[in-house]
Amino acid sequence: MIQVEPKTKWFEKTVQAIRSVTGPGKIALHQPEFCGNEWAYVKECLDSTFVSSVGEFVDRFERELAVYTGAKHAVAVVNGTAALQVALLLAGVEPGDEVLVPALTFVATANAVHHCHANPHFVDSSEQTLGLDPDALRAWLESTVEMIHGKARNRQTGCRIQAVVPMHTFGHPCDMDGILRVAKEYNLSVVEDAAESLGSLYQGKHTGTFGQLGTLSFNGNKTITTGGGGAILTNDPELARKAKHLSTTAKLAHRWEFVHDEAGFNYRMPNLNAALGCAQLERLPGFVSKKRELADRYGKALAGFDQLELVREPFECQSNYWLQTIRLKGDGVGHRDSLLSVLNDAGLMARPVWRLMPRLEPYRQCPRAPLPVAENLEETLVNIPSSPCLVAGA
Amino acid sequence: MIQVEPKTKWFEKTVQAIRSVTGPGKIALHQPEFCGNEWAYVKECLDSTFVSSVGEFVDRFERELAVYTGAKHAVAVVNGTAALQVALLLAGVEPGDEVLVPALTFVATANAVHHCHANPHFVDSSEQTLGLDPDALRAWLESTVEMIHGKARNRQTGCRIQAVVPMHTFGHPCDMDGILRVAKEYNLSVVEDAAESLGSLYQGKHTGTFGQLGTLSFNGNKTITTGGGGAILTNDPELARKAKHLSTTAKLAHRWEFVHDEAGFNYRMPNLNAALGCAQLERLPGFVSKKRELADRYGKALAGFDQLELVREPFECQSNYWLQTIRLKGDGVGHRDSLLSVLNDAGLMARPVWRLMPRLEPYRQCPRAPLPVAENLEETLVNIPSSPCLVAGA
Repeated sequence: MIQVEPKTKWFEKTVQAIRSVTGPGKIALHQPEFCGNEWAYVKECLDSTFVSSVGEFVDRFERELAVYTGAKHAVAVVNGTAALQVALLLAGVEPGDEVLVPALTFVATANAVHHCHANPHFVDSSEQTLGLDPDALRAWLESTVEMIHGKARNRQTGCRIQAVVPMHTFGHPCDMDGILRVAKEYNLSVVEDAAESLGSLYQGKHTGTFGQLGTLSFNGNKTITTGGGGAILTNDPELARKAKHLSTTAKLAHRWEFVHDEAGFNYRMPNLNAALGCAQLERLPGFVSKKRELADRYGKALAGFDQLELVREPFECQSNYWLQTIRLKGDGVGHRDSLLSVLNDAGLMARPVWRLMPRLEPYRQCPRAPLPVAENLEETLVNIPSSPCLVAGA
Repeated sequence: MIQVEPKTKWFEKTVQAIRSVTGPGKIALHQPEFCGNEWAYVKECLDSTFVSSVGEFVDRFERELAVYTGAKHAVAVVNGTAALQVALLLAGVEPGDEVLVPALTFVATANAVHHCHANPHFVDSSEQTLGLDPDALRAWLESTVEMIHGKARNRQTGCRIQAVVPMHTFGHPCDMDGILRVAKEYNLSVVEDAAESLGSLYQGKHTGTFGQLGTLSFNGNKTITTGGGGAILTNDPELARKAKHLSTTAKLAHRWEFVHDEAGFNYRMPNLNAALGCAQLERLPGFVSKKRELADRYGKALAGFDQLELVREPFECQSNYWLQTIRLKGDGVGHRDSLLSVLNDAGLMARPVWRLMPRLEPYRQCPRAPLPVAENLEETLVNIPSSPCLVAGA
């Protein structure tokens, strides 16, 4: 009797291929690594008693972030959502405006728009970059927008469209040239959500430095972490000053008076968290090269599969490969959840990409373009273990 | 010839009296002290690699806060402003509502209301407590409010008044009995801003546990610090669940799916900060007793002055004396800024109470009651050095 190989035999092969890279044991999706000056700096911070929003590590972290990314200014805040909210406000987003964001993103992108009392307007992604697709965006805006007094207005909702937020998915840079061109045509501010792409370059330049403002995240699952944290990047000194002012309760400098000239935020990064950040930043180049090496190893191990492939960095980009991603194809399509079960049951932590924003309760009523690519990506992307420690060495 | 003593001779005497308590050197207004398990817990946290929003120290800090305050539940968040914003939302505050807050408060109280897209409605303070005056509040509401379908409505603005936020100024508890009575009469939710009063009791019960919800702050200048941090207190398990949910991006529990059922916040306290908090909380009773001892010493040193007096805790209250406060009286009135100059020049850090909220640009147009007491307090209160380390001993 002929044994027919069961259809899902490739699940087992996938587990074996990933295991050949990760080694044995329960493997996290992404865990941080504290093998440098983390304890030294955190201890120094405690000893100084300056653990709160004023302190040397905050200033140093901001300086070193600016040097690393090439942005003229970096302003450290409590997290990536806060960074994006403040950046959007500084980009001129007002209550009632619409902001173009990818349907395929972590919910924080949409939440930041919501926290500005503006509405996210969801647009489609690109097969190549997993980020906002400038061609689809242009086609959609052509059919949807009218320009009134030089500003884009949504014909259906009557609302002004003030900004566009490209997000660099899993560290892979968007097509910034294309996006900047469309933004210019429609007079949109560009605020890059670079929460996932610290260490990623587009045409040799760091992500988050192409738009008027860009934002970073240092959450525990990111390439480097400060516990909780984020930053705003900009080349404009006045926007940098405003970002710091707005995130520090908008208090005017005075020897003792408490005068606040705006309804500001309590969003500054504490010095304790910045101390951790300074140590992590020293190790960032090493983390990025390990994560790129990990992509090469996964690429080899998963080569030749008919049902899936590893997502590689877009053309002219250098990705930090924050989260390693496989994409189902051919016979693999339609088996996402079964594969997720098999991988997680095997001790290899895996997860799908986020549910598309317009499918979440709070964003169901928001304007949206056709989303054929995002809908396909939602069903076919799976993240697999991505920690830099999976590659040995300093 | 008779030498007339210059009018401001009492400035020098005040410096000497304060110096007799603080000793020599430059003395900060309030500095934290890390002499317990701070290093040990923070190191343990780093070693665990769980530095972000999930971790054992967050759970432990919440449990121990609940035990210490007597609240059934505590939810740790990034800071006191975030705590108050979430608490107000859970107390039913909706965009366009008004929320009664003292005109004499730190700007965060008003900002939290603003961040809910509600409007602060400023009311007067009490001479005895420095906090919200229930009698003045009742008189004002009688003349301003009509009850429609059981809800208070501001006759002038037409807006619903949904909540009242007593704030326990410098750690001195408000007259909660009186405030709760007025709140009941007008069907107002009570959310206590206990940012300054961790360790302060009203009739033997911890501040922040009288209202539907209460909030704490662990900023660097507070009685204990987590770098940046805050917490929401409540006895209602459903409100506690919602507070945690809303502050954790409103994500539903699932093995891998990303489903968020509300536009939530990224407000959870990182484990790194909670580790510091756990160590600080162990030392809180010692800090409070030192701060109370400091009040006694200042009280003695400043007794007999005609121009000022030390502010003491209200009747039936036990204050944490977060910030030691002198109040100008008699000939002292009108000399606040001169005294501030003399004290700060002498190396004794001192500051006035906050500028009244309706005098700040963002809140100039907000509704307000007559504020005779707050206006007087604004001109007569001065904070002086208050660190627990000014009292020696464990």
